[in-house]
This record gives sequence, C-alpha cells and structure tokens, in this order.
Amino acid sequence: MSILDNTNQYIVAPDISAAKLSRPVEAVDHNGRKTVIKVVEERPLTIFLNGREIVTVMTIGDYPEYLALGFLRNQGMLKDSETVIRVDHDEELECVVVRTDSQTNYEEKLKKKTRTSGCAVGTVFGDMMEGLESKSLPDMKLSVSDLYALSSTINRTPSLYLEAGAIHGTVLCRGARPLAFMEDVGRHNAVDKIAGWMFQENISADDKILYTTGRLTSEMVIKTALIGIPALVSRSGFTAWGVEIAREVGLTLVGRLRGKRFVCLSGEERLLRDADPGSVPDERPKNIGKGAQ
Amino acid sequence: MSILDNTNQYIVAPDISAAKLSRPVEAVDHNGRKTVIKVVEERPLTIFLNGREIVTVMTIGDYPEYLALGFLRNQGMLKDSETVIRVDHDEELECVVVRTDSQTNYEEKLKKKTRTSGCAVGTVFGDMMEGLESKSLPDMKLSVSDLYALSSTINRTPSLYLEAGAIHGTVLCRGARPLAFMEDVGRHNAVDKIAGWMFQENISADDKILYTTGRLTSEMVIKTALIGIPALVSRSGFTAWGVEIAREVGLTLVGRLRGKRFVCLSGEERLLRDADPGSVPDERPKNIGKGAQ
Repeated sequence: MSILDNTNQYIVAPDISAAKLSRPVEAVDHNGRKTVIKVVEERPLTIFLNGREIVTVMTIGDYPEYLALGFLRNQGMLKDSETVIRVDHDEELECVVVRTDSQTNYEEKLKKKTRTSGCAVGTVFGDMMEGLESKSLPDMKLSVSDLYALSSTINRTPSLYLEAGAIHGTVLCRGARPLAFMEDVGRHNAVDKIAGWMFQENISADDKILYTTGRLTSEMVIKTALIGIPALVSRSGFTAWGVEIAREVGLTLVGRLRGKRFVCLSGEERLLRDADPGSVPDERPKNIGKGAQ
Repeated sequence: MSILDNTNQYIVAPDISAAKLSRPVEAVDHNGRKTVIKVVEERPLTIFLNGREIVTVMTIGDYPEYLALGFLRNQGMLKDSETVIRVDHDEELECVVVRTDSQTNYEEKLKKKTRTSGCAVGTVFGDMMEGLESKSLPDMKLSVSDLYALSSTINRTPSLYLEAGAIHGTVLCRGARPLAFMEDVGRHNAVDKIAGWMFQENISADDKILYTTGRLTSEMVIKTALIGIPALVSRSGFTAWGVEIAREVGLTLVGRLRGKRFVCLSGEERLLRDADPGSVPDERPKNIGKGAQ
C-alpha cells in the first residue's frame, strides 16, 4: 500500500505551530499604536553534495532534507541512477549534506561549468534546461471541477501564509486531493521541497497537478516539467517565457485561478471542462496586506 | 543644477509602450473563450566584469546597463573608489560588460570566495553582509503624509504591472515625489536598477526613501542599507530576519502600506506622524489576479 492510499487528508502540511518557523515582532501601526505581528523566519541553509559546497539558500527552515534533495534533483546534479546513501542536517551549522554512492556525474558537471564562458544563457540556467528536450509529459485529464475544489481547499488550509503572510505555498495534488503542502519564503524552495519529498517517498509524477501561489516564471515551468508533473496551476500571473517553455514541453499551464476565474495558457487539451463557472462564487479579498510579493 | 531639480515628474518611469517588454499571449478563459493577454517578457542577461562572467539573471530586459552596474555595486564587486570606464550592452548576445580602471578588488574577492568552504552563511550572502557593520544611515524625517501621497501616486502610475501584472516595482523617492520607477520580474533586479541609476547619475542616498511592491526580506533590507538609503517602504509583508537586520543597521522599515494602513517595524524615530489616517480612504482591491507573487 502506498502512503497515498492511507488517508483523505494532507500527507504533509504546514506545521503552523512550529516555534521555529515564525516569531512575534513588535511594530507600531498607522495609528501610532504598538502591536505585535507574527512574522515568518528566514535563515540561510547551505547545501553540500558529497563534501562539496553547492549553494546557500534563504529558507523558512522546515524540511531542510527535502529542500536539499529537491534542489539537487531540479538542478540536474542528482540523477535517477544515483543512490542517496545519507542526508544529514546540522541545525547549528545550518547545512545539509547529501551523500551519494557516486560522484561521477557531478564531477562531470563541474568541469562543464568551468568551461562555459560564453555570453547568452549562463551556466546555472543552461544546466536547468538540460534534459527538457527529451522530456515527454504524460497524458492526463485535468478536470475543472477538481481545480475549483483544490483552490477552495488550499485557500482554507491553515498555513503560515494565513498566520503570518509573506510566504509562498506549493501543493502537490492528485485529482481534487491536495497531498503535500510546502511553504517557503522563496517559491522555488517550496517546489524543491515538493520534489525532494517525491524523490524520498518515491511518488510518481504522472497523475499529479502542481499548485502554487507564486508566479509562473520560466524557472517554475522548467522545474515542474523536469519533475515530470504534467500540469502547473497558479493563482498568480505568468511571464511570456514561462508560457513559451510550457508550450514547447507540452505542460498544461493554468494561471490567475481565483474564484471561478482562470486562464489556460498551454496544454488546453488536458482540460476537462466539467464544471459551470457560474456556480462558483467570486473569491473575496482577504488577508490584504499579507501578500507574499 | 542637478537632474532632480528639473521637473516634478518622474525622471525615469516604466516605458509601457516598449514593444520588447511585453507581448500578447493567447489563452482560453474559464468560460472556454479564447482571449489575448498582455504578458511581461523574461529573458536572461549575463553580467561580465572586466571580461569575467559573474552571473546570469532573469530580467524583463530594460535598463540592462543600470541592472549590471547596480548588481555589481550591491554585491560589493564595484567600489566607490573604482572608475567605470565603459558599460557595453550586446542585445543579441544578451550580455552586459562593465569595464573598470582596476581589477584589484575583484580579484581579491574571487580569491576569498575560493577559500570560503565552511558551513553557515555562504559566500554570496556573506559578501553581501560585508560592509554593513561600518554603515551609518543618515538622520532624516519621513513624514506619514508623504508616505500616503507616494503610495497613492505610485499606485496610479501607468506601469507594466497595471498593464500585464506578474512584475515588481521599486521606486526611489524624495519626500512626496517619486523620482525613478523601475520594474522587473524579480524584485531584486528592480532594486539593482535603481542602484545602478543612482551610481551613474551620482544621486545621493541621504534624503531618499525606497518604495517597493515586494516583500521586505533580508536581501532587500541589506541592499537598501548598502546603497545608504535610510528608509524602506513596502506594500507587502516582511520576514523576521529582514526586520532584525533593519534594526541592527538603523534602517526605517515600513511594511503593509495599503490605504491608511501600515506598520513601522524599525527606525520609528524617523517617522513624522503629520497625517490623520482617518482621512485616508481604504484601498480598493484592484487588478486581482495580476499579483506579482
């Protein structure tokens, strides 16, 4: 039995009571009155692969192991063929060390990076695009009634966003069910944590939908396609290049999903229009001022 | 006469008619109807310093020279003491080359980076913090009536955000007057462009306010303090570390400025409460769905 069969609830969801993820901060409001606001944390985390320092990311601090695994996967530094032997998180030193059974691929990649010196798309981004050409995203139906249900459920899920704002959420879903909900100060971190969780738990990407509160930029589209998820949905806007890449790789891209409204920018053929938008209430503006912008 | 004396208008503002900054994208809406949406561009720009490749950023593409200069300044790679001889932008190769009269500082920095290999805060971030301890931000009064006026003016300024959404704006202001308005897909780029413009035009930071639509994260606070601007204002939220650093360096930090509402998180002593919040109308939600999140 897979962990996906166990429950109708989220398998992973924000732990809003975790003391380390937010703290009260004193402020003075527009009336000159002292007030205390719950504010999300932001801390550095340095990711190592087999003893080599790769990057320092700014993160809220939960699920550091998933973040490290997902980052390395999404950067193409950790392949399907490699076996992860250990992932160690040192809280005091603020680092995660991922150890694999082989250093070959990574060493090759380092050499390649050193060689790259031309103009145009740089090394990091160039590496990210790598592997996209050969990617074929699975056939899957994305029903509009599920989209509406997901949006409604996710918006009402207790989250650090609702508690403290200034944070992005990304949710891995199957049909109308949200499975894993990750939050972070950067939307890319939230996607990396989802990827790390899927890698660790061996979750298939084939029948999944990725929902995010963040914008659909090229990097978000590339990460989703590299994970192999066929549909990416957001309540926010999008960039022209994000749309272009989604069309090239055949990813279904839905933006500006709020209340009954949305636009489908790519992969319309996966959409199953089984809901009457007229029956969906418009979303009420809420938490104004908490925006994770 | 300084360029600041010339006019009451913006000196630099978004060029929303520039064909290269946005394009129409076909989409299908929630009713299944075809629609065309104006969407912002996103393209890579590789920054070189004296022949060395430094970074590739994803940008909307305007003001590449300011972006390059500001990025290098804000990363501490370009010091006050250095003379910039030339800045060349090659549109086809998507790169900017900044040439200075000396390579010494940068070469030292590169050596230092190679040595850094410990855990905790990594090289890029460590370098950014560098120079903050010695920074002393100027005394200055920030009147609440100016804040309200700025917020109202900026929100009504024609911008790519109002046109196409999914973009961040950052505005350099003095008193109630917005001077330079930069937009970009990443909020850090918008701040870097402001810094590059100030550097190029030799604009003092002492009496300025930096307004941003984006969140007040540690990086935004550090960049503002390094530029030497004493006040940072946002319509969005903030992170705990952003607040902490602002307090350490004595930066006035105002968040969640919408309509009459705001919270002051640091440097309250600079605030001049000369306006009655009761006389300011609440902001109406607008452009819902265009959020640059």
